[in-house]
Amino acid sequence: MASLADEARAAARSFAPELVAWRRDLHRHPEPGFGEFRTARIVSERLRALGLDVRIAEEAMDGEAVHHRHADRIGAASERAIASGVDSALVERMYNGGTAVVADLTGGDGPVVGFRFDMDALPIVESSDPEHRPVAEGFRSSVEGEMHACGHDGHVAMGLGVASVLARLRDQLGGTVRFVFQPAEEGAMGGAAAITARGLVDDIDHLVCVHLGLGAQTGTFVTRAYFLATAKYRVSFTGQGAHVVNSPQSGRNALLAAASASLALHSIAPHGDGWFSLNVGVLRAGDEQGVTPPWATMELGFWADRTDVYDYVDARVHQAIAGVSRAYDVGHKVVRIGGAPAADQDEGLARVAGEAALATDGVERLEDGISGRAGEDANVFLARVAERGGRGIYVLIGSDLADGHHSPRFDFDERSLVTGTAVLSALACELIGEGS
Amino acid sequence: MASLADEARAAARSFAPELVAWRRDLHRHPEPGFGEFRTARIVSERLRALGLDVRIAEEAMDGEAVHHRHADRIGAASERAIASGVDSALVERMYNGGTAVVADLTGGDGPVVGFRFDMDALPIVESSDPEHRPVAEGFRSSVEGEMHACGHDGHVAMGLGVASVLARLRDQLGGTVRFVFQPAEEGAMGGAAAITARGLVDDIDHLVCVHLGLGAQTGTFVTRAYFLATAKYRVSFTGQGAHVVNSPQSGRNALLAAASASLALHSIAPHGDGWFSLNVGVLRAGDEQGVTPPWATMELGFWADRTDVYDYVDARVHQAIAGVSRAYDVGHKVVRIGGAPAADQDEGLARVAGEAALATDGVERLEDGISGRAGEDANVFLARVAERGGRGIYVLIGSDLADGHHSPRFDFDERSLVTGTAVLSALACELIGEGS
Amino acid sequence: MASLADEARAAARSFAPELVAWRRDLHRHPEPGFGEFRTARIVSERLRALGLDVRIAEEAMDGEAVHHRHADRIGAASERAIASGVDSALVERMYNGGTAVVADLTGGDGPVVGFRFDMDALPIVESSDPEHRPVAEGFRSSVEGEMHACGHDGHVAMGLGVASVLARLRDQLGGTVRFVFQPAEEGAMGGAAAITARGLVDDIDHLVCVHLGLGAQTGTFVTRAYFLATAKYRVSFTGQGAHVVNSPQSGRNALLAAASASLALHSIAPHGDGWFSLNVGVLRAGDEQGVTPPWATMELGFWADRTDVYDYVDARVHQAIAGVSRAYDVGHKVVRIGGAPAADQDEGLARVAGEAALATDGVERLEDGISGRAGEDANVFLARVAERGGRGIYVLIGSDLADGHHSPRFDFDERSLVTGTAVLSALACELIGEGS
Amino acid sequence: MASLADEARAAARSFAPELVAWRRDLHRHPEPGFGEFRTARIVSERLRALGLDVRIAEEAMDGEAVHHRHADRIGAASERAIASGVDSALVERMYNGGTAVVADLTGGDGPVVGFRFDMDALPIVESSDPEHRPVAEGFRSSVEGEMHACGHDGHVAMGLGVASVLARLRDQLGGTVRFVFQPAEEGAMGGAAAITARGLVDDIDHLVCVHLGLGAQTGTFVTRAYFLATAKYRVSFTGQGAHVVNSPQSGRNALLAAASASLALHSIAPHGDGWFSLNVGVLRAGDEQGVTPPWATMELGFWADRTDVYDYVDARVHQAIAGVSRAYDVGHKVVRIGGAPAADQDEGLARVAGEAALATDGVERLEDGISGRAGEDANVFLARVAERGGRGIYVLIGSDLADGHHSPRFDFDERSLVTGTAVLSALACELIGEGS
Repeated sequence: MASLADEARAAARSFAPELVAWRRDLHRHPEPGFGEFRTARIVSERLRALGLDVRIAEEAMDGEAVHHRHADRIGAASERAIASGVDSALVERMYNGGTAVVADLTGGDGPVVGFRFDMDALPIVESSDPEHRPVAEGFRSSVEGEMHACGHDGHVAMGLGVASVLARLRDQLGGTVRFVFQPAEEGAMGGAAAITARGLVDDIDHLVCVHLGLGAQTGTFVTRAYFLATAKYRVSFTGQGAHVVNSPQSGRNALLAAASASLALHSIAPHGDGWFSLNVGVLRAGDEQGVTPPWATMELGFWADRTDVYDYVDARVHQAIAGVSRAYDVGHKVVRIGGAPAADQDEGLARVAGEAALATDGVERLEDGISGRAGEDANVFLARVAERGGRGIYVLIGSDLADGHHSPRFDFDERSLVTGTAVLSALACELIGEGS
Repeated sequence: MASLADEARAAARSFAPELVAWRRDLHRHPEPGFGEFRTARIVSERLRALGLDVRIAEEAMDGEAVHHRHADRIGAASERAIASGVDSALVERMYNGGTAVVADLTGGDGPVVGFRFDMDALPIVESSDPEHRPVAEGFRSSVEGEMHACGHDGHVAMGLGVASVLARLRDQLGGTVRFVFQPAEEGAMGGAAAITARGLVDDIDHLVCVHLGLGAQTGTFVTRAYFLATAKYRVSFTGQGAHVVNSPQSGRNALLAAASASLALHSIAPHGDGWFSLNVGVLRAGDEQGVTPPWATMELGFWADRTDVYDYVDARVHQAIAGVSRAYDVGHKVVRIGGAPAADQDEGLARVAGEAALATDGVERLEDGISGRAGEDANVFLARVAERGGRGIYVLIGSDLADGHHSPRFDFDERSLVTGTAVLSALACELIGEGS
Repeated sequence: MASLADEARAAARSFAPELVAWRRDLHRHPEPGFGEFRTARIVSERLRALGLDVRIAEEAMDGEAVHHRHADRIGAASERAIASGVDSALVERMYNGGTAVVADLTGGDGPVVGFRFDMDALPIVESSDPEHRPVAEGFRSSVEGEMHACGHDGHVAMGLGVASVLARLRDQLGGTVRFVFQPAEEGAMGGAAAITARGLVDDIDHLVCVHLGLGAQTGTFVTRAYFLATAKYRVSFTGQGAHVVNSPQSGRNALLAAASASLALHSIAPHGDGWFSLNVGVLRAGDEQGVTPPWATMELGFWADRTDVYDYVDARVHQAIAGVSRAYDVGHKVVRIGGAPAADQDEGLARVAGEAALATDGVERLEDGISGRAGEDANVFLARVAERGGRGIYVLIGSDLADGHHSPRFDFDERSLVTGTAVLSALACELIGEGS
Repeated sequence: MASLADEARAAARSFAPELVAWRRDLHRHPEPGFGEFRTARIVSERLRALGLDVRIAEEAMDGEAVHHRHADRIGAASERAIASGVDSALVERMYNGGTAVVADLTGGDGPVVGFRFDMDALPIVESSDPEHRPVAEGFRSSVEGEMHACGHDGHVAMGLGVASVLARLRDQLGGTVRFVFQPAEEGAMGGAAAITARGLVDDIDHLVCVHLGLGAQTGTFVTRAYFLATAKYRVSFTGQGAHVVNSPQSGRNALLAAASASLALHSIAPHGDGWFSLNVGVLRAGDEQGVTPPWATMELGFWADRTDVYDYVDARVHQAIAGVSRAYDVGHKVVRIGGAPAADQDEGLARVAGEAALATDGVERLEDGISGRAGEDANVFLARVAERGGRGIYVLIGSDLADGHHSPRFDFDERSLVTGTAVLSALACELIGEGS
């Protein structure tokens, strides 16, 4: 008799046409972070239809925890969503409360398995080259300047696929599967933080975050991919303008404070146990040659490959800014506008996932412990789950790419959709086991 | 028998009503630097009517020598000038060629006496307080955001007055009087440089630049007022952007170059023989937290009370920028966007002027050697005249003020217009003497 | 009948041979600041012989108020003093308690007139050129590396001269003359502060500080010479060493703190109402390439031409150091090792002094308001007297120089000794008047 | 019949008592880098006695290639060496020409196998704790402040051991074994560079550099240990002193140049492909508060884990110093006082070495590819050999330590001496094979 996991694998394969159709529809209609109105509507309706318990908007996230929003892109997306038929009251609710969708499929009292899928697109104009497959096959982005150039359209499709598969097997599941569809993964603006702030990952026992590609080829399954911890700050210095000929002594020079702070920040000593990179990427100060610059702003970010390195840099950043402000007798304000921690991943869960993957058609080899030179909002979830005593991993579904992530010519191998759906569904079964 | 100078003094008094009328008309119609279309038309017509040899627009200045123009203010002024009846072809010619007016009154082969009058207004909204005399007496600025708040309207009126007086005495003048009506004194944008570049002060033997007020009260005549030498630069640094996580080593950081340059510039050592103040007033750099800032711009100015101090600072500024650019391996460009040198003034000419003033009704006391904490575009003329072997002074016609220069409530004592016209006319007579 | 002042002038002339002899003896035996053992012995013995009430060593100064001592130079001077016959117990007392001598000549209940004379030499090897007059006439320094190259030998001689003159006239003096012979004027190490701390200038009504030369030629008397306010600090930063390969993150970099502080200090904005110069003259930091520098020290000074400018700079210095320390997370300590304030001088007293001088043979002209680009420890006295309601001036006895102050070939015109003695003696008579 | 390698292993074991005796004698008589007079005498005499062709002093190294010497420590060592009986003419020759010893054992025309052993001690006072074994067993350093605290005494003993073993087997060796006993490994002062400059590693086919311990425990053999590339520079800035009150403008401030350079150097961007740490460890500048600092010196080092990272940092260091010098208008000089490149190591040679080791009693396990957070002078040899077409490795003989390297309580497990001698001797046999 086939195991539950094998039943799941077989079911996944039966959804192959839907997976491609869902992905291509989403690809045609990309939406920005916190502007995933149409996407969230599709996801929530489908999950409700499957019988899941669905939370949306303010039920699924706490807007207070959001770091940053791109108001222009979100506004445009809301208009497009309404024009495409999304109920305007729902759009307004999501506009105010957020575009997250979190849904539970409960089959018994057993453990809670969580899956994270991200939904946002990027501010990129998609290639119009006739050889670019989305052009050739008619699913190029319909919005100039928004594009699913990272594969999140595929992630959402897989999420729907896994839900469809497991809903069929619900009676045999002895626990809960939680589907976390998060907005705004890109830019570390707070999509994960906002869901976490609602407590929606606190009871997850096994969290599996998913990405397509990222260097892994079709046929490969990566059990643990690590990302950098990162923080992004906006810093304001407030000094005092003065006529630099008549009374330069009355000035408090915010420009020099920012200049000195930039040098201090860039000269934070390296860490012996890890790697980090810090960048003051933006500096603005002053208005006139004849007036002591009374204001300055900086935007800075840093990326570190370990939590202790992150903590070290973060402490030094705050010290440097506070001290330099005092040295130049100016006020300062530091606002966190983004970031995600580093996160450990569980070896045992990785082993289980690897076994489930290798037993799946389309997976030929495993890798473990890949390090990515980027931040990932999923780390917010992984860190929280670990803090609460659960375990988590970040897996990659290998997929051959037409061009790199974030390229106007990005495209992936759609066969990976079935593979991914099968692996994740099977893994859920293994983790939960049969209900009694 | 009355001396020629005394005849001039008497004639000046006879123009008292015209002086006030001219000044108030100009006050009502303020125009920005290089946008003095209506003013230049009035001046040139009047001087032609008096029989002077008049140069205007490209005849009177070389637009290549202009450092900076405020395109918006000038455009608006050109539209107002045309609307007020100035011939649009003339406006176009001045728009392209400049608004300077330089005119000669020639009475013989003797020396050339030059007078400098400036014509531009300031971007200030004039007070609408009913007690503000221009409001009370109906000559408040008709243009919101442009105002004669420094007294240049009075300077132009005095210039027309002196020309009117001396034109009457032309037969008795044994030399030439050159009237230099300059645009754009404020902001050191190149009004004086552009006239100088046409060679129009090269043959002046005695140059007298004039200002009302500046701390001198009605009844005082200042024989020499000194101004600071100043230079203004726009500095661009060009580096190389790089992804600060993947390849920070490929970046060339223009932001850090600008930060380091700012500190180096502000730490130029003081000068033992004089005073200066330097300010990097504006800094802009970079666009994104995740990218090494590939560009930075700074705007800086400095002001010095002596030519050798100016030269010292100027040399150090260029060294610092070039060196820091090399240190951070970025390109740099330094564009001079303004400035005026320090200028010596002639003691003998000051004595003659003081005597001519004291012999004039309305002048009760002399001062010499006042130092102003500001730059003055007139220094460009004074320095050039000295370089060519002539001599020059910058005199103040004392005038009680309603409020300080550049204040929305600025106004001066109009009695000073007659006094000034009389002193300058008499001085011209003393300097040229009677023709043979 | 001759006035008391004229009697004093005549008496002064009678001491001409002694003045030269005293000066040459002191010139042969120069002693460093706080090491004026032999000098103080000569002064105190002479003044006691004249009947003055003499305080010496700890009676005349408070060693706690000393900023700095050159232990090596002082130790060597103490050995020379004992070898030359100064009682070793007295030397020991002065070694511990200080070398100041303060003496009162009291003739009545009237006002207290104070004179300040400084006694210390400089660490300079005197020229051995046969044409250098001290060589030619046999009074070159007998100590290699110590030299009276500023004229303080002449000041002490004049002090003894004035005491000798006024002691003769004691019965006719209606007040007190206080003679303040201060150690350690050079280097602002605290000679004046230590005497002030004993309260010995608190009751002075008219304080006259004296210097020879300083640009004033023989025949000139300067009624007020001004000096800069100055402060000198030693700054220590204490960080944490760390192996820069194994654990750079554990380091706290005192060298970078000092580097950043140096830039911050040198970029303090100029003052619109005055002039100052600041210099971090000495920097030492770290011991090894492979270790984060755990310590750094700086020595800095600044000089300002006004008290408000001084106060401004002083406040900014402390802010900059405290702030930078915080920015780099290091400790800091700021120790004042020298300094003297700016001090106002009294116009009325200057007038009286000028009149007394012009009535004296050898004085042909007056000057007032000379500004010196240097600090002067006398400012400590002048500031304290003014604070207590008295008035003070710093006068110059003009004297042609063989070479500039602090030169190995420095020498002055000894005729100035009589002139100075006569002027100061006469001035004391004028200020005190005759007793009743 | 036993293989040649096995014969070597057996022979090595027979030298166990000598190995310990040699090591303890050397431990009692530690000598500083370039001061290994007694050590070099012992080594050279022993090798000559074994029939090797020995080069010493100027024959073995080129003094011109030395970066740095500690003159005091070397001088004291030369006196101790003479006192201990080393011929003073030989000491003088080594004092001038160097303390390297390079010797060949030639058995045929086959390949050249090189071994590197380092001889220098550290400036550390050895523990006098009775429980410290060198104290307990009577071989504590006889020189306070010099100590073999890194194990080089053991390296020299193994070198003598390998030579003793292979000399016995000379007839069976078909190639040459070159023994390179290098001075001054610590501090990267140029010991390896000086030998390399004589061409003495140019013809080596297989180079094996050796170290005890370094984290490898007794029983472990590490086939390739990698070290950081490093460079050390002394930087001098030459400015111009000036009296900071009278003529600050004449100064050229070397202190500010060094301060700014320190900040620029510490803010070199990280490298995306590797790790580095840079430290300005020493800064000295200026002499007086009142004088613009006319000089400054810095000593800096950096360490990088890859050659391309090293090259990147090195280029940026030179740019930063040259640029900052220009910015502050001071001269600069950069002198390399130490350093060693990164060096690749050969995989094939590592495999052969690992096999030879595993076949040796006392070796229970292999490791490969250990990365050390330190520089190693051996990299100079390894890089040169690779450049000439040979191959090289840096192996570790595991040894349990009493305390860490460079600790006053450092000591190692002397059983490793036999193991190391056996492994290296056997490896030489395997690499050369039998002569024909």
